Amino acid sequence: MKFQRLALIGCGLMGGSFALALRQAGLVQHITGFSASEKTRQRAVELGVIDQACDNVAQAVQGADLVLLAVPVGAMPSSFAAMREALQPSALLMDVGSTKCDVVAAARAALGERLNCLVPAHPIAGKEVAGIEHAESTLYQERRTILTPLPQNSIRQIKMASEVWTAIGSHVSHMTPEAHDATFAAVSHLPHLLAFAAVNALTAQSKGAGFLEMAGPGFRDFSRIAASEPAVWRDILSANHAEVLTQLAHFRSALDQFETALQSGNTAALQQLIQQASEVRSAWTLQAGNACNKASED
Amino acid sequence: MKFQRLALIGCGLMGGSFALALRQAGLVQHITGFSASEKTRQRAVELGVIDQACDNVAQAVQGADLVLLAVPVGAMPSSFAAMREALQPSALLMDVGSTKCDVVAAARAALGERLNCLVPAHPIAGKEVAGIEHAESTLYQERRTILTPLPQNSIRQIKMASEVWTAIGSHVSHMTPEAHDATFAAVSHLPHLLAFAAVNALTAQSKGAGFLEMAGPGFRDFSRIAASEPAVWRDILSANHAEVLTQLAHFRSALDQFETALQSGNTAALQQLIQQASEVRSAWTLQAGNACNKASED
Repeated sequence: MKFQRLALIGCGLMGGSFALALRQAGLVQHITGFSASEKTRQRAVELGVIDQACDNVAQAVQGADLVLLAVPVGAMPSSFAAMREALQPSALLMDVGSTKCDVVAAARAALGERLNCLVPAHPIAGKEVAGIEHAESTLYQERRTILTPLPQNSIRQIKMASEVWTAIGSHVSHMTPEAHDATFAAVSHLPHLLAFAAVNALTAQSKGAGFLEMAGPGFRDFSRIAASEPAVWRDILSANHAEVLTQLAHFRSALDQFETALQSGNTAALQQLIQQASEVRSAWTLQAGNACNKASED
Repeated sequence: MKFQRLALIGCGLMGGSFALALRQAGLVQHITGFSASEKTRQRAVELGVIDQACDNVAQAVQGADLVLLAVPVGAMPSSFAAMREALQPSALLMDVGSTKCDVVAAARAALGERLNCLVPAHPIAGKEVAGIEHAESTLYQERRTILTPLPQNSIRQIKMASEVWTAIGSHVSHMTPEAHDATFAAVSHLPHLLAFAAVNALTAQSKGAGFLEMAGPGFRDFSRIAASEPAVWRDILSANHAEVLTQLAHFRSALDQFETALQSGNTAALQQLIQQASEVRSAWTLQAGNACNKASED
């Protein structure tokens, strides 16, 4: 498997790291790139992430046998529309969005007969720091990537998508877009929402700054994801709001149980609630993929 | 500063680490220890953490010029009562409880004229794994320790307490017990409660186990504190329930704002809420002490 031409739409951390990884694995000959910001696409050339900066999506996609769409979820509909005419019928198109149902809906609305090109992907990787400057070829190593294939995809195309991610060190799983979004609302989107709210709850208090000075390693880790990029997470939470609200309702039920136990001084109930959480979390370990349990400690 | 005899009441992770650190710093000649479990105190002798296992609190405290009370917060009242008669008038007594108002109240009720011996302490250190087996002399290094001195304490005694923690690598701050409990309800106790509730919310769902298999590094860090020891956190949350409930109310207000923005599809409001959290958390760094900003990455 070797691609003649990768078109990178969105030259940021995710896209840039994908390009670097593909190049390092010797899987691609030429990389064109487009970013909304001209400065960013020039920087991508300077850093050797892409070979050629293009002025628009269509120009970048022209002649590409592999296209990676790595823009914020909110910018995907217009990107799909912009590439439709330029997309080769045999091209493999993947996105890296953290939500999938909305991406599929946007693609369905904009790609027309080219919908079959798209194998939606969600590599579970990232950093708190965004931007092309932080791109690195190892970002996807030992990480899980979820593919949510469409009925329109060919077996050959799904296999190729899987091989690309595997070749750059990722562990590939398949899910439906719906199962994907329900799952990540539970284990990623809601935790982000809770971390954001916890930080805002501190800031809202007059003594909040003083409180924060005394916070320790527990708070550091608990709140790490609250430093995530606002525009990215606005899009993720908006796109998946129905599932996120469902998870929030589950969380509120669990929280109510703690509040009731605290208010009534029911220490036995409190201990039982904590014990349940502690046992589940102690038994849990980060899975790098179905075939590999090696934890990647980032 | 050198102590003739340290009495360790509670031979677990916190107490054991304190004993090891003091010994390594050459600050103590002889260490007696008591734990409710005979097996634990024998193990503490075997591991060289204590020199002599005692059958009860009074026996361990007899003749000690330094006493560390490192039992769960719930066991402190009975421990204070048990040591009252045996405590030397000049002894320095410290606890390591994560809450302070309740410890002070228990000491006031049980210690009588020996109340002046107690300089309440809260070293902000720990691990998810408990027990004497995991004790290590470096546990308090580059960590903050809060002292909440009492009006009954002498200047000399407060200075000595401060020097002990400084000598084993900790950065010492002073607060009132009330300010301490309000602060840690905000930056520690509530985050634990939220992490416990988040894990329970997953477990309560039929698909929860499947969701958990797909969780990534964000969830790992966010939920790390949910693995904390149930009995310890039952006691902390119970002891500080008033402040925790106050913080929970602040959190619910912040959470409501997110929910409203999600329900109404107000992406501008959503972005603003996230941005506020992201900026505060990005600017925040773990402080090891007032005089030292070096972050200790555990």
